Amino acid sequence: MKIIRYSKASVENYGVLRDNKIHELSGDIFTEFSESGRSFLFGEVDLLPPVDPSKIVAVGLNYKEHAKELNLPLPTEPLIFLKPKSAIIADGKNIIYPDMSSRVDYEGELGVVIKKRAKNVLTSDAKDYILGYTCVNDVTARDLQFKDGQFTRAKSFDTFCPVGPCIQTELDPKNAKLKTYVNQELRQSTCTSDMIFDMFYIVSFISQIMTLEAGDLIITGTPKGVGSLNRGDEITVEIDTIGRLTNKIV
Amino acid sequence: MKIIRYSKASVENYGVLRDNKIHELSGDIFTEFSESGRSFLFGEVDLLPPVDPSKIVAVGLNYKEHAKELNLPLPTEPLIFLKPKSAIIADGKNIIYPDMSSRVDYEGELGVVIKKRAKNVLTSDAKDYILGYTCVNDVTARDLQFKDGQFTRAKSFDTFCPVGPCIQTELDPKNAKLKTYVNQELRQSTCTSDMIFDMFYIVSFISQIMTLEAGDLIITGTPKGVGSLNRGDEITVEIDTIGRLTNKIV
Repeated sequence: MKIIRYSKASVENYGVLRDNKIHELSGDIFTEFSESGRSFLFGEVDLLPPVDPSKIVAVGLNYKEHAKELNLPLPTEPLIFLKPKSAIIADGKNIIYPDMSSRVDYEGELGVVIKKRAKNVLTSDAKDYILGYTCVNDVTARDLQFKDGQFTRAKSFDTFCPVGPCIQTELDPKNAKLKTYVNQELRQSTCTSDMIFDMFYIVSFISQIMTLEAGDLIITGTPKGVGSLNRGDEITVEIDTIGRLTNKIV
Repeated sequence: MKIIRYSKASVENYGVLRDNKIHELSGDIFTEFSESGRSFLFGEVDLLPPVDPSKIVAVGLNYKEHAKELNLPLPTEPLIFLKPKSAIIADGKNIIYPDMSSRVDYEGELGVVIKKRAKNVLTSDAKDYILGYTCVNDVTARDLQFKDGQFTRAKSFDTFCPVGPCIQTELDPKNAKLKTYVNQELRQSTCTSDMIFDMFYIVSFISQIMTLEAGDLIITGTPKGVGSLNRGDEITVEIDTIGRLTNKIV
């Protein structure tokens, strides 16, 4: 099932995407919901980011081939950092190239949306705490990342976290194909089986540090093939049955 | 004026502290509010953290004497990082010593609470975007900070962000005395005039990166005298007319 969030006549709601239509949901997507019976065409609504998290937790170096590309040893535990929710934009919205930077990179990533409060969750139970999966672009001002050492400024600019287009509830996170395109040219292509720490381990690890809430977003690292963007470029992150997240940088 | 947040019979509300009583507020503390006429004694309510931010932005090395103590050059621009809101606890609540760490430090800091949405704010206008000030303890697992390089894990454990006891709207942030005590022994004592980047510059700088929302919390760095804690210790951060933020670590 593909869950999207949208706004119609200034009212925000969730819907299920089926047969190219948005079927309005009533209830709570994290607990119980059903279709209300109303449906819309894409042109009739404004697509919103499918998540509104209390926090975004990201994992650094998490693909073996990417570590090899950077000549870095494989980490022995996940390296985490945070992005602010103010950076989130929807599919189709523009990424703004900040004046402070002169090198902005794409990073295509698989995102996980948390279903219910998670604290000290076992890896073997982690699946029960996941609502679904989405595409994320962890946009990064690479020059500022190197300058600061800390990743925060480089990854926190407004518009630096495109998320969408939907939450797919039926993905196998250990065997999903992830591709990133710049102006339709393939730049990243991997399978999530190349991850150093799999999704369930990551959810468990983070939940031992901080309580995760329903709707929180975890992004799980980028594969090899990272590169820079120019104003005017169009970037697409595509993951199997989730779909395509496309944004232009201006 | 000292604004506190509390819970009474499971209902959360804001109040003004005056004559050792909590005077209930109606309205919105960020725009317009007035006293409702009802008042309570401290024992009649549960004190909550005075803020419920969409994000917490922190500044690293920001006191000249602290930079000297660490033998580090003065930074030429603020180094920022994020803490998750899941780490926030109120005055009087316990800090939990995490199993993952064997070195947990206090860091007494002045916190700023944002009054209204702020994006690309000038330093000279920053004052208009500030609701008030509070005490914060930026609790840090120092061993994990050094291990990870990134500050996130070290500073994101649940309970690692005590905030309170109130929002003081009438403080001079460039001339406030900040003291930290461990078991009543003075460990940090400074004036905020020793800051490398003052409060208004910091608000302006961060607002050029990310949009700040009403209620967001900025914490402005710790002065010299940082040190470690043992289970059972009681830590107090005290700032002039804001008051005392006291938490035990267990």
